[in-house]
Amino acid sequence: MTDINALARTWHGTHGTEPWGELDLRLTDTCLRDGSHHKRHQFTATEVHDIVEALDASGIPVIEVTHGDGLGGSSFNYGFSRTPEQELIKIAAETAQRAKIAFLMLPGVGTKDDIRAAQAGGGQICRIATHCTEADTSIQHFGLARELGLETVGFLMMSHTQSPEVLAKQARIMVDAGCQCVYVVDSAGALIMEQTADRVSAVVAEIGDVADVGFHGHENLGLGVANTIIAARAGATQIDGSVRRFGAGAGNTPLEAFIGVCDKLGWRTGVDFLQIVDASEEVIKPAMPEECQLDRMTLMMGYAGVYSSFLKHAGNAAERYGVSGAKILLEAGRRKLIGGQEDQLIDIALLLKAEQDKAAANS
Amino acid sequence: MTDINALARTWHGTHGTEPWGELDLRLTDTCLRDGSHHKRHQFTATEVHDIVEALDASGIPVIEVTHGDGLGGSSFNYGFSRTPEQELIKIAAETAQRAKIAFLMLPGVGTKDDIRAAQAGGGQICRIATHCTEADTSIQHFGLARELGLETVGFLMMSHTQSPEVLAKQARIMVDAGCQCVYVVDSAGALIMEQTADRVSAVVAEIGDVADVGFHGHENLGLGVANTIIAARAGATQIDGSVRRFGAGAGNTPLEAFIGVCDKLGWRTGVDFLQIVDASEEVIKPAMPEECQLDRMTLMMGYAGVYSSFLKHAGNAAERYGVSGAKILLEAGRRKLIGGQEDQLIDIALLLKAEQDKAAANS
Repeated sequence: MTDINALARTWHGTHGTEPWGELDLRLTDTCLRDGSHHKRHQFTATEVHDIVEALDASGIPVIEVTHGDGLGGSSFNYGFSRTPEQELIKIAAETAQRAKIAFLMLPGVGTKDDIRAAQAGGGQICRIATHCTEADTSIQHFGLARELGLETVGFLMMSHTQSPEVLAKQARIMVDAGCQCVYVVDSAGALIMEQTADRVSAVVAEIGDVADVGFHGHENLGLGVANTIIAARAGATQIDGSVRRFGAGAGNTPLEAFIGVCDKLGWRTGVDFLQIVDASEEVIKPAMPEECQLDRMTLMMGYAGVYSSFLKHAGNAAERYGVSGAKILLEAGRRKLIGGQEDQLIDIALLLKAEQDKAAANS
Repeated sequence: MTDINALARTWHGTHGTEPWGELDLRLTDTCLRDGSHHKRHQFTATEVHDIVEALDASGIPVIEVTHGDGLGGSSFNYGFSRTPEQELIKIAAETAQRAKIAFLMLPGVGTKDDIRAAQAGGGQICRIATHCTEADTSIQHFGLARELGLETVGFLMMSHTQSPEVLAKQARIMVDAGCQCVYVVDSAGALIMEQTADRVSAVVAEIGDVADVGFHGHENLGLGVANTIIAARAGATQIDGSVRRFGAGAGNTPLEAFIGVCDKLGWRTGVDFLQIVDASEEVIKPAMPEECQLDRMTLMMGYAGVYSSFLKHAGNAAERYGVSGAKILLEAGRRKLIGGQEDQLIDIALLLKAEQDKAAANS
C-alpha cells in the first residue's frame, strides 16, 4: 500500500510550524465538458462565453469544452447537443485571454477529423479517454494529435475497477503512443483515499520520468476533494475539477473548494480564491439546471461503482418503465458496465419491469 | 504529526487482499439538532416523529434532538423554536424503538433544570458543548448529568483553533468531571485531513483508557466524509453526521455516504445502507427547507474558520444592512468569534455599511 503519510510531507496545521511541502498544480476546469452531462448537453453560446470569461479571469489555466461524451458525442445514444460543440470550442478559444482550451475525445465516438476541426477552432489540448483496460485504442489518436502539434492528455476511465499495476501498464501504452500526461479517472466516484494514492503512485512510478500524471475525481461518495488532495501528494500535478461540482453524477471535485484548501496548505494553483468563488456564485450557478446533489441515485453510483455519466440515462429509463433508478444502477454496477453501454440500462429497466409485473400478477 | 498511515491499518482495495482493519462505530445522527440551524429551528412535531421513525428503523443507534444551540437556545439571540424542544425530545423518545435520544446543552445557554426536563421527556444521553478552551464551564453539568444517571458526551467546539495538546488537556477536564466520551468538533468545517487525525489522536492518547473519543465534522471545505474516516482510524469510535448533510453551514458529514463507505471498507455501523438512503430521499429531504450547499457563504466559513451556525445570522445581517455576507464571515474569522458572539455579526455588518457609505460619498 502507498504510504500516504510519507507522501504527505509535513503539514502546516493551524498551530503547526512545518509546511505541507510546496506543490505547483495545473488545474483544468471541466464544467463545460463533464458538466455537459448534468446540463443534458444544452449549453448555449452565451453560457459558454460567460463561463470561460469568468474562469479565465480568475486564473484557471485550462478549460475543457466538449459534449459530455467527447467530440462526436452528440447523437441518439448519448443525447444531442443544443449548440454544436465545435462552435462552443471556437467561442471558448476566442474568449479566453490566458487559459488554454482542451477538448475530450473517445476513440470510437469521435474521429480524427473531429480532432482536426477542434484544433482549427482553437483547441490546444487533446484529451483522449478510454476505458482503463483499452489504452491501445488510443494509439493512433495520440499519434495524430502529436503530429498536429497538440498537447496531449490521456484518460484512464473507471480506474477503480483495475489494480494499480494494470493502470500503470495502460498508462505506459498511452505514453509510448505520444501522451504527455495520463490521468487516473475516478469516473464512478468510487475510490476511497489510499485506493487513489495507490493508483496515482503506480502510474507516477511507471511514467513519471517522461510524462505528467493527473487525477479526475467525482463526488459520489463525498470524497472528491480528499481524493484530489491525496492524488496531488502522490504525485499528480494536473488536477481536474468543476467549479460548483458542475459535472456528471454527484458532480466533480468542487474546484473552488479544492483551491481554498490549496491556499490553506500553501500549494500554488495560480487561481484567485475569492474571484473563483464569486464566479461560482454569479456565473456558474445560473448556468446549472440544478445543483449537483449527493442523493439516492448519485450515492448509489459511488457505492456500486457506476460510470457517472449514466445518471441521466438511468433516470430516463427508470421513469419510462416505472422502475427504481437505484436498482438499475446497482445492477449496472454488478454488470460492470462501461461507457458506451448506455443501451444496457434500458435492458436492465425492462428486466426490472418484467420482474415487477410478474410479482404484481402473483400478488 | 500523527502517522495516519500507521493508523490506517491495511485496507481492502478493489483488488487488494488486505482488510482495512475491523472497526465498530457508534453513529449519532444530528439532523434534528444541527439541522435545526438550517431549518431556522422550525421543526414540526410530525417531522420529528417521521425522521426519528425512519432513522431508528434503519438502525441508527443515537439520534440527537434539541434546538440548534442546545437546550434553552430558543431565544431572541439564537432564534425561536417553532415547537418547544422539550416536546420534540418527548416525541422522539416515544417514537424510537431501539435508538437512544441525545440532547445538547451549552453551559450558559441551557440550565440544570433543562437537563432534568430533557431526561424526564425520555432523553438518555446528555451532550455538553463548550468552546474548546472552556471545558471548565462544563464541570458542574457533567456532575449533575452523571448524578441523574445520564450517559454523558462532551463537545470541544471550534477545535481547529487549538493545538492537539490544548484539546487533550481540555478533554481531560471534561473526563475528570464525569464525561464518558469527548468529541473533537470541527464546528467551522475547517480541518484538513491530518489536522483531524492529530487532534483525535492526542485526545485518544490522553483519555482513551477511560473514555471514548468522538468526531463531529462539517462540509465547509467538502471534507466531512474524509475527515470522519481519518478520525475513525485515529481512534474515534463515536461518529456524528446528518443524513443528507442536514446541518449548519454546508451541513454535516453526510451520514448515509459515510455508512456506504464503511460498508465498502468492512467497518460495522449496524445501519442498513439501502434503508438509510431511502430515508434520506423520502423522509429527510422533504423536511429540509433546501439542500445544504457548498456555496460562497459556506465555503467562506471553512476557509476563514467560522462557526457553522453563524451562517443564517450572517445572511440576515448582510440582507438587513445591504453588505456582503462573505465579507462579514471573513471578518468574523479574523476576529476568531465563537458561539454566543452572534451579536458581533451585526457590529461587523454596521462597520461594513459605514465603509461602504463612506466610499460611495467619496466617489
